[in-house]
Amino acid sequence: MSERLVVVGGDAGGMSAAATASRRRDRDSLEIVAFERSGFTSYSACGIPYLVGGIVHDPDTLIARSPEEHRAHGIDVRMHHDVTAIDMTSRTVAYRDLGARRDGTVGFDHLVLATGASPIQPDVPGTDARGVFGVQHLDDGIAIRREIAEGRPKHAVVVGAGYIGIEMAEALLSQGLQVTMIDRGEHPMPTLDPDMGALLANAIRRIGIDLRLEQTVDALTSEDGHVRRVVVEGEELPADLVVFGLGVRPSSALAADAGITVGPTGGVTIDDHARTSAPDVFAAGDCVETFHRVSREPVAIALGTHANKQGRVAGINLTGGDAVFPGVIGTAVSRVCALEVGRTGLSEAMATAAGFEPRGIRFDGTTRASYFPGAQEIQVKLVVDESSGRLLGAQVLGEEGAAKRIDVFAVCVWNEMTVTEVMELDLGYAPPFAPLWDPVVAAARVAVAELG
Amino acid sequence: MSERLVVVGGDAGGMSAAATASRRRDRDSLEIVAFERSGFTSYSACGIPYLVGGIVHDPDTLIARSPEEHRAHGIDVRMHHDVTAIDMTSRTVAYRDLGARRDGTVGFDHLVLATGASPIQPDVPGTDARGVFGVQHLDDGIAIRREIAEGRPKHAVVVGAGYIGIEMAEALLSQGLQVTMIDRGEHPMPTLDPDMGALLANAIRRIGIDLRLEQTVDALTSEDGHVRRVVVEGEELPADLVVFGLGVRPSSALAADAGITVGPTGGVTIDDHARTSAPDVFAAGDCVETFHRVSREPVAIALGTHANKQGRVAGINLTGGDAVFPGVIGTAVSRVCALEVGRTGLSEAMATAAGFEPRGIRFDGTTRASYFPGAQEIQVKLVVDESSGRLLGAQVLGEEGAAKRIDVFAVCVWNEMTVTEVMELDLGYAPPFAPLWDPVVAAARVAVAELG
Repeated sequence: MSERLVVVGGDAGGMSAAATASRRRDRDSLEIVAFERSGFTSYSACGIPYLVGGIVHDPDTLIARSPEEHRAHGIDVRMHHDVTAIDMTSRTVAYRDLGARRDGTVGFDHLVLATGASPIQPDVPGTDARGVFGVQHLDDGIAIRREIAEGRPKHAVVVGAGYIGIEMAEALLSQGLQVTMIDRGEHPMPTLDPDMGALLANAIRRIGIDLRLEQTVDALTSEDGHVRRVVVEGEELPADLVVFGLGVRPSSALAADAGITVGPTGGVTIDDHARTSAPDVFAAGDCVETFHRVSREPVAIALGTHANKQGRVAGINLTGGDAVFPGVIGTAVSRVCALEVGRTGLSEAMATAAGFEPRGIRFDGTTRASYFPGAQEIQVKLVVDESSGRLLGAQVLGEEGAAKRIDVFAVCVWNEMTVTEVMELDLGYAPPFAPLWDPVVAAARVAVAELG
Repeated sequence: MSERLVVVGGDAGGMSAAATASRRRDRDSLEIVAFERSGFTSYSACGIPYLVGGIVHDPDTLIARSPEEHRAHGIDVRMHHDVTAIDMTSRTVAYRDLGARRDGTVGFDHLVLATGASPIQPDVPGTDARGVFGVQHLDDGIAIRREIAEGRPKHAVVVGAGYIGIEMAEALLSQGLQVTMIDRGEHPMPTLDPDMGALLANAIRRIGIDLRLEQTVDALTSEDGHVRRVVVEGEELPADLVVFGLGVRPSSALAADAGITVGPTGGVTIDDHARTSAPDVFAAGDCVETFHRVSREPVAIALGTHANKQGRVAGINLTGGDAVFPGVIGTAVSRVCALEVGRTGLSEAMATAAGFEPRGIRFDGTTRASYFPGAQEIQVKLVVDESSGRLLGAQVLGEEGAAKRIDVFAVCVWNEMTVTEVMELDLGYAPPFAPLWDPVVAAARVAVAELG
């Protein structure tokens, strides 16, 4: 008898699960139905700033796989369908067809929750004016681009100096706008330590972005329904385009309402097989919380790479396989004009909170042999456990060739290497690629010397 | 009472040992004497092709630390001094001052052998003509550059298609010469597998180098004492500049003559503390053989990174410390014009020889999100142990951003990760830096699928 898999959410997590399951079972034995509220499946939200910045021209290129492509693989994708409830007793989900304005229910044998995350809403009057945007859905990117083309705005204010805010600020700057960026924190990118955050703040200001830290937005004011000013700490800033990038929270209400366990971060709790607390219910993507391998605590990190892997693991396990998602270490990279920034593992503050005794080690080096043309400065920060010498985290900042070195540190952190072991690594050396002591190894060497 | 450290060889291995020892002991307790045959200390041999190619203009920039700088750190550096014998009974070394043409002996309490490696000499008539060069010493690079400027050669023949041969071929091409490269092997860079080697051969030919494989040089012919032709398999090729880059062999005769153990590779045998078989005698750099962490066999790999680390370890241990050099995994990177190549661990052939049952897995991807400008093709080869799934080695080929990904694989190989574990890694993702599935993770995923 045929079974049915129902997937709630048609982006990275849900469609990875659906696609994986469809490869492992034929259509006669497993029917797959996927519900998606929006008009897009499997798109790259991380690409939105590059759409706004004109680096990517066609929004369709950000769609990894369209509904039609998923259907060609036997997945019954229902677009503009909003799942409103899960009934674990009858094993059904209730949905609303937003187009036909019709409600329905469908039974499931296996369920994958991939409801994603919702942007944190600013608690500020005036955000309903035209010219005010979020950065979550592909529609947001398309709308901002249209606003730039048609409204010809001159002054942009970006609220929030996390990754997406910074990438949006760069994109708007590249489109000729004056850009102000406001954040309530001490430095941009809160997962950096203050010393590296200060270097990043300087770099952001050098490229011409008016970065205002430790400030909050009081209100937006409009004329004729279009935003014109942002009031910040009592000061009125001109603003004909406002973008909120305050981060996201897991969308877990659907799960919670069905009695499925939601963890302290607000994300759906999953085990290392992507199983929720309910039988036959898996979850994947931005709606879940996952295990941080260094802090050993749950974290909610909205990132397509995790969503894809979790979806794949769910798709394998619900079809009788055995796959594991062993957790994350918070690796991230970003770019602001020529400046690259990367981080992995724990910052000093996170390490202290997790019960380690961290020591921060700074090292400044170059990305290539210092005599080689194109050698750029790279600033490295290591977070090391003082008693064991274990590398808990790393942060890098620099120009071309800097950010992806975080991957080397990420594999070191993943393997719980000490800085002595990192120093001993056999990494690639040739003058166009690295100095004789690669910054990764050189930073570890400094740490070994400082720890004594 | 003061002790004396004698260092034989003033390049990376020897001077790292000397510098490390000088930082750990004051001059009154440890006198340090270093003998160097040439006129240079601590130079970057890897930089020679870039000197020839005009990317680096001043040979002095390739010198990491001059004799004067070493002397300022209290090291008695004796240039143009050739150490001719070691007497382990009297604990003395005999030397010849090549400048003053005077012989002498000096006693030691600690000895570091860093005699380097010698270029493999071609067994070909006619190599004593003008216009024929090696690529080992800084003098070679300076001489080739002078020959290009003054002799205005048109046809270069490079013999040997290892790293240094390829980099020299690129350098000569960039100087406007027609370049033929000859190698007796099936493909360039013998540490690659044949499939990746074939891709590299194609790329080398595409940039305009006449690459002739499985051919050997019969003779060089000259006119007026200057080379004019290279005879290859009976065919005469015009050649007014010939460069031999046939690789190097450890220079271990001095050690062997003193009864110090030399291993099967011809390199001085050292343990993981850089100790030789003789008491108080350490060795470091291109003259030693070291432990390959994957094959568990001794290897001789001439590379400045290893020399530096071994020298540091010797310097620490001979001054009463405890440092370890845990071996190598054969990581290497190189560049041919826009093409980057990297390798680490074992090739398929090496893995078979070491008793593994290797399976080669190929994956073609892109260095950035495929929609992002500047995304380049990257070709990845993994060598995986069939029964355990352990990653034994990796090779990458591609344009900008390809080669340094080998470092990520290198840390995986170092930690004996399986391809399943590699697939699970949390690596940095953002469209300018990687696709959602980074080529490292994507290649591992293909391997997991193929191994079943």
